[in-house]
Amino acid sequence: MSAPSVSYSITIRLEITAQPAAVSTVTAVVERAGGVVTAVDVSASGIDRLQLDLTCATGGEDDAARIVEALRGVDGVTIGRVSDRVFLAHLGGKLSIESRVPIRHRDDLSLIYTPGVARVSQQVAAHPEDASRLTIKRNTVAVVSDGSAVLGLGNLGALGALPVMEGKAALFKRFAGIDAFPLCLDTQDVDEIVATVRHVSPVFAGINLEDISAPRCFEIEARLRAELDIPVFHDDQHGTGIVALAALTNALTVVGKRIEDVRIVQSGAGAAGSAILRLLLAAGARDVTVLDVEGVIHHERPGLAPELAAIAALTNPRGARGTLSDAIVGADVFIGVSAPNILTERDVASMAHDSIVFALANPVPEIDPAIAANYAAVVASGRSDFANQINNVLAFPGVFRGLLDARSHKVTDDLLLAAARALAAVVTPEELNPTYIVPSVFHPEVHTTVARAVQEAAQATT
Amino acid sequence: MSAPSVSYSITIRLEITAQPAAVSTVTAVVERAGGVVTAVDVSASGIDRLQLDLTCATGGEDDAARIVEALRGVDGVTIGRVSDRVFLAHLGGKLSIESRVPIRHRDDLSLIYTPGVARVSQQVAAHPEDASRLTIKRNTVAVVSDGSAVLGLGNLGALGALPVMEGKAALFKRFAGIDAFPLCLDTQDVDEIVATVRHVSPVFAGINLEDISAPRCFEIEARLRAELDIPVFHDDQHGTGIVALAALTNALTVVGKRIEDVRIVQSGAGAAGSAILRLLLAAGARDVTVLDVEGVIHHERPGLAPELAAIAALTNPRGARGTLSDAIVGADVFIGVSAPNILTERDVASMAHDSIVFALANPVPEIDPAIAANYAAVVASGRSDFANQINNVLAFPGVFRGLLDARSHKVTDDLLLAAARALAAVVTPEELNPTYIVPSVFHPEVHTTVARAVQEAAQATT
Repeated sequence: MSAPSVSYSITIRLEITAQPAAVSTVTAVVERAGGVVTAVDVSASGIDRLQLDLTCATGGEDDAARIVEALRGVDGVTIGRVSDRVFLAHLGGKLSIESRVPIRHRDDLSLIYTPGVARVSQQVAAHPEDASRLTIKRNTVAVVSDGSAVLGLGNLGALGALPVMEGKAALFKRFAGIDAFPLCLDTQDVDEIVATVRHVSPVFAGINLEDISAPRCFEIEARLRAELDIPVFHDDQHGTGIVALAALTNALTVVGKRIEDVRIVQSGAGAAGSAILRLLLAAGARDVTVLDVEGVIHHERPGLAPELAAIAALTNPRGARGTLSDAIVGADVFIGVSAPNILTERDVASMAHDSIVFALANPVPEIDPAIAANYAAVVASGRSDFANQINNVLAFPGVFRGLLDARSHKVTDDLLLAAARALAAVVTPEELNPTYIVPSVFHPEVHTTVARAVQEAAQATT
Repeated sequence: MSAPSVSYSITIRLEITAQPAAVSTVTAVVERAGGVVTAVDVSASGIDRLQLDLTCATGGEDDAARIVEALRGVDGVTIGRVSDRVFLAHLGGKLSIESRVPIRHRDDLSLIYTPGVARVSQQVAAHPEDASRLTIKRNTVAVVSDGSAVLGLGNLGALGALPVMEGKAALFKRFAGIDAFPLCLDTQDVDEIVATVRHVSPVFAGINLEDISAPRCFEIEARLRAELDIPVFHDDQHGTGIVALAALTNALTVVGKRIEDVRIVQSGAGAAGSAILRLLLAAGARDVTVLDVEGVIHHERPGLAPELAAIAALTNPRGARGTLSDAIVGADVFIGVSAPNILTERDVASMAHDSIVFALANPVPEIDPAIAANYAAVVASGRSDFANQINNVLAFPGVFRGLLDARSHKVTDDLLLAAARALAAVVTPEELNPTYIVPSVFHPEVHTTVARAVQEAAQATT
């Protein structure tokens, strides 16, 4: 039985005999069956019957079924429709497109459509830079995915990716006031993806790539950056990189170490891994050893793919070889963006004093954060049910707000570093402690602070 | 000096001496200079000065300049900023993308983003038909243009088309509750346009093609219809066809003639022309003669392009040859979707008794509607400043509402005929007269009536 979570929350419509203890009886049954009651609404009432909508968090589908069965066994209870809060929240899709102009009568039509719009079209055609003043290009970002690597779920295709990209677009609006539209592509061919994004790019002020599998994502990003005059950001790489570096910056302050001095071992050389590495080095790290499923990446390893050879050239100053257990001995920092449960308790115990463990694999981390915390001074993960969640939502809204406000044409490492520094600084010295190295995504300063830093960095480079 | 129009409306900020006749003095100056004052706002007031924002419709840029100059000559008046209402209405773009779900705290995040969204993605990936229930695909249409034929302005390119496509999307929401997103493509290559639309199609429930030049638009439409499982509608063709046929249906009722019996002369064989012809024939017309810039289209004309040869095979039962002036003699109906001022007063006079003239060229019709009305019983145009405006906005919102409600996969001629019939029937027998053959786009019944008819027709064919 897993811990109850709202992401497996159900609403059960049931009828019970109207008597004083009726509601408390059923809620007690739910709690005994492992659910957490989060809401009870009386949806109808009669002389001797009560209709309730009972919402409870469960540990998953099996737990939900067990709770419903337990309620069915209660005397006088009739079970009606059981609905799933997650699916209810998605009904009809999560975005709407609204007109920002009133259309009340013919005059309005003449202003915003023909004939008035003709002059605006001519103006924009003659002066393309006016598109960022007179059209939605000003504030609109494309969230682009081919569905090849959706969350940790694998290749779900375009439609499978759509709920995630809609959610992402909703977060863009909520946290940064950006109009984002999800483009889920029915192709996974690199050339076709690049061509499609290029062809639709006139409408957008920025491109956010998402959930595209490595190594295809590297080529797509590189080619789009070369071909387009708007910024291209791959959240799985750059978003994760920013938040991880911000968190590491604060974690190092907690333990009183400097990034230039520490030994870092990183497990994972995919999209997130390569971006984190790049930022670590840009931020001053000098001793990083990277591993993939085959062990330490080093220049003598046979059959090294080009992107791994590039990593080998920049890392592993100690000439390490072997497995994670070999490499981790004496390390100050572990950063995992790889696979579940590959880091053992003994591995963490073998690290240096005051070690830092970021176990970011999703949904199951490289090591249970609670176990890692027995040895490490600071522990972070991708999970919301532990302290120090490394969550991309901390970065991408503010980054794009800054890019758009600066009318930036490109994303640079300087800009990503500025974002990481700004994000780290949202946590004040008075607030900083081993369980609070990154702020909440609902912290009122996070997105404006990141945006300001990115805007300044973008303007400094143009 | 043209007639004042809100599409050339300006707002003049000015300061005047505060005295009783101050406002009436300046408004009188505006009216004498040919403007129509539509609003006067006092934006600031002092002891002896008044600051006014004076909005007036003008006949165009020259007229606007003349009005400002006239005001400058008034004693005690200081002119400030002069702004253009059309450009003001477009500032920042005309659309916004909003979240339909609240994002207030971590629980909301878990519901609509990770981890909750993972289950929805898996559901949609496994059951693609659920996308029309659980994602924005349910209610979202792409408004696609390559900017090759924007309004009557020619090839303005992707950015030049964007203000029009945004306006179109705003109308979709206003009149049919549809979420429409403008995709303006930076390519005018048929293969690339088809590939791009196909690649982005998973997100959409329908495709509205717009302002793509003929004959490329025919091939793009045909190929997309063959490749996609969602309806593809080319508004310049099908929208115009529906509204023209609805208007003709009612015009024929006014003059007491039947479509099967009348002689129809049509000038224009482009996108709109070919669609109108197709619908006329589907509706029962038997005697149609079509002309292009080279005169009557007939099968013996040398060098006939394939699309014109197809027209020749279906039309011209009298074996007409020659010019418009030759063909029009004795005709009951003229339909022009061609070029300004090509129909003379004498041409209209040569038509049959109780003739019908639709001069739909935009912005300047084939003949001034006021002159045509001296001879014809019913006159219609594309202009909003005459009776009987043939306006696509009467058709496309309801058509797509019906297509989406029916979850239709394709657009058929039956469906377009049903839309035309429904639109015609919105004008009741009691309302019908020579100056009211189509309803206003703001008529409360128009879009729901068209939607219902299209939905029924779509469901009947599946």
